[in-house]
Amino acid sequence: MRVRSGAQAVRGRTLFYFVIFSERVIHVLEILKGNIVYAPALGTLSTVEKGYLALRDGTIEGLYQDLPAFYKNEPVTDYGDKLIMQSFADMHLHAPQYPMLGMGMDLPLMEWLSTYTFKTEARFKDTDYARRVYRKLAKDLITNGTTRVAMFSSLHTEATWILMEELEKAGVTGYVGKVNMDRGGDTVLQETTVESIRETLRWLEGCHFEHIKPILTPRFTPSCTDELMAALGKMAAEKQLYVQSHLSENTGEIALVKELHPDCQRYYETYAKYGLWKDHTLMAHCVHSDARERKAMREAGVVVVHCADSNVNICSGVCPVRQMLREGIWVTLGSDIAGGALLPMYQVITASIRASKTRRMMDDWQMDFITVAEAYYLGTTSGHKYFGAGDGFAVGDKLHAVVIDDSDFTESTRPLTVAERFERAIYMTQRHNIVAVYSDGRKVVG
Amino acid sequence: MRVRSGAQAVRGRTLFYFVIFSERVIHVLEILKGNIVYAPALGTLSTVEKGYLALRDGTIEGLYQDLPAFYKNEPVTDYGDKLIMQSFADMHLHAPQYPMLGMGMDLPLMEWLSTYTFKTEARFKDTDYARRVYRKLAKDLITNGTTRVAMFSSLHTEATWILMEELEKAGVTGYVGKVNMDRGGDTVLQETTVESIRETLRWLEGCHFEHIKPILTPRFTPSCTDELMAALGKMAAEKQLYVQSHLSENTGEIALVKELHPDCQRYYETYAKYGLWKDHTLMAHCVHSDARERKAMREAGVVVVHCADSNVNICSGVCPVRQMLREGIWVTLGSDIAGGALLPMYQVITASIRASKTRRMMDDWQMDFITVAEAYYLGTTSGHKYFGAGDGFAVGDKLHAVVIDDSDFTESTRPLTVAERFERAIYMTQRHNIVAVYSDGRKVVG
Repeated sequence: MRVRSGAQAVRGRTLFYFVIFSERVIHVLEILKGNIVYAPALGTLSTVEKGYLALRDGTIEGLYQDLPAFYKNEPVTDYGDKLIMQSFADMHLHAPQYPMLGMGMDLPLMEWLSTYTFKTEARFKDTDYARRVYRKLAKDLITNGTTRVAMFSSLHTEATWILMEELEKAGVTGYVGKVNMDRGGDTVLQETTVESIRETLRWLEGCHFEHIKPILTPRFTPSCTDELMAALGKMAAEKQLYVQSHLSENTGEIALVKELHPDCQRYYETYAKYGLWKDHTLMAHCVHSDARERKAMREAGVVVVHCADSNVNICSGVCPVRQMLREGIWVTLGSDIAGGALLPMYQVITASIRASKTRRMMDDWQMDFITVAEAYYLGTTSGHKYFGAGDGFAVGDKLHAVVIDDSDFTESTRPLTVAERFERAIYMTQRHNIVAVYSDGRKVVG
Repeated sequence: MRVRSGAQAVRGRTLFYFVIFSERVIHVLEILKGNIVYAPALGTLSTVEKGYLALRDGTIEGLYQDLPAFYKNEPVTDYGDKLIMQSFADMHLHAPQYPMLGMGMDLPLMEWLSTYTFKTEARFKDTDYARRVYRKLAKDLITNGTTRVAMFSSLHTEATWILMEELEKAGVTGYVGKVNMDRGGDTVLQETTVESIRETLRWLEGCHFEHIKPILTPRFTPSCTDELMAALGKMAAEKQLYVQSHLSENTGEIALVKELHPDCQRYYETYAKYGLWKDHTLMAHCVHSDARERKAMREAGVVVVHCADSNVNICSGVCPVRQMLREGIWVTLGSDIAGGALLPMYQVITASIRASKTRRMMDDWQMDFITVAEAYYLGTTSGHKYFGAGDGFAVGDKLHAVVIDDSDFTESTRPLTVAERFERAIYMTQRHNIVAVYSDGRKVVG
């Protein structure tokens, strides 16, 4: 095996590349050509106009303004004037709530849960129904460019496997969790503690998917008894599993948690005392997390999933994302289907920008809003890093990308820069504009 | 000529109908069948499941749960299980800003105006360019179900006629205004006072469109000298023309207006003193209008155009719409392209709901948010009434309707009511779901 490496200057930045030659294994080389856009850091947008992305077996080998000579004989997929951008990571959504998207939005949270949510999730006992809905969800995710997810299923083991299988087939990658809930789910949607533990173990044993892995998913503190939380904490440690849940979404919920755990000063402590507050634990919302709770996130390596549309729809509040970023907290984005009503992550990104602008107004114009480049980073790189990826289109990463054809957007008054076209694409893209999707190095759409 | 009239009970409500028989004129009768949805009053949603809408020459003659016997031989357009809903009225948008949709959203207002807006509008001196952009805009409006508009053109007379012609051809109805601006438009976009008056008169003389009428359009106080304002006020009175402009959009603008008109206590007085503040004057935004200014609106019959998405995008603030409604002010909705980035009015309606929820948060949860039925009323009936229409699908009105096919939405867990399907359609519709559009009694799409 021989290795060739070097550096290439692109628009004042130096990009490093390495090429592996092997006599034994046949590697598939592919070059993508187009207008490349990625967010290597918060607030930084990198563009390579009419540039090249070199792939070996789906892994990024280099990014070039001019194609190096040693690639000259390799096949090029020429996307012409289209945009090749990082695909999206949706770090919080409830798959079994997909059928109720855009309904009950005027109801207060508790009524919304009992009128729609629990009844809708209960329906996923029916595996045929689950198969139909999850197949559609998987297709809608991937064709809208969401290639990585951290997702809640329902409490049903069989339906959760079906969800994982349908995501796998569609080309979506990431984590899915069978939900644990042994209290508070009305009569329609609840397990006993014993059932919940037993089914979780059975579910874990049946997870043999290449691109979709299990994640432990206590619904949230009000849904889980102490006994269940303790068992899940033990399981997380023993099996080295990540955890996802909800935190400090609205004030009523926080009050309820305080009642249930009078020994805990703050909501996060109800997770911490059972070993569920740890590195890579995903916590959705965190709208009302105070400075102490935010400090605990940073110290533990907990990751915030900001769900802007959901927080507005069900009047939870507006998460102080800028404050969190200043404090060095790891923030990602989630659609939170079906509290959120927007599945496409490009719409979730603009919803996050809009939410941050209203947050700015609520803070007497004292706090900066989140720019389009920043929000794009949160909806792409920041999420991808959860799965071990590097910064932006990083050398050595499997490719996760969307190709956007913006040629049917309104004719502009002058030629636009790639950065301007990127912004317009984030605000204006519809599903049909996404003409190709790459996920884990494979072309899964287009 | 004979007249037959009667009454028909529909879901507990009595609907009156009348039928005109004539020996001399041949009338075209058509019956539409489907799930009918309309908003006859603020907060009231009326539905007729598998009902009938009877049209004579495009005018609504009656609305029935069961088709009366005397219609039995008339042709029925059966829309099956689809939704037949009122179409939308977009009461504020800038046609020549359409090419910059979704760009420059991170810029502060004044920089946004100089970097994008004025330069973009200036391009409409080119009539070929105007033709291409306006044809696309007209098509995008009508296929998204917007059948009535009150629209700003640029200052260019020829391009304004082209805009009116393209709207007329596409089936959009309403008002368009050549913009007046004799100061503050940089060097790229400005007229002299004399030019502005002369061109307005020339433009008015050339307006011979059946469905698109002229409306006087001083851009806003900072763009118009006192002399120009006085001339426009005189013109409005003499020619009995309606007026549209901007009011109290953001705090910087309000401060500037105070500098320009030290004699005026409030922004609206700068319009009032020249006769432009009158019955049916459309004022966009009104985010910061105080109680006194709101009282003046009510007294004069001024109509507010709430532009929720724009107000958030360019950080103007969040209009206290609930307060205005409580005070009896006439509120309509506008996309405000391109401060707003959402052209489809069903998206503007959900943006208004979301804005009102953030307003609720800003008001310490003391103010109710705008429900989906209320926001739909504001985006339909409230706007249509500006053009003389009645309440909802009113007998005697020309039909303005969209037909929505929601069959590709995710399979629900149980049969949905028409009202639930309506809510989901408002949140989830995409252009392809709109399978037919009726405007001024004519079928213009589908």
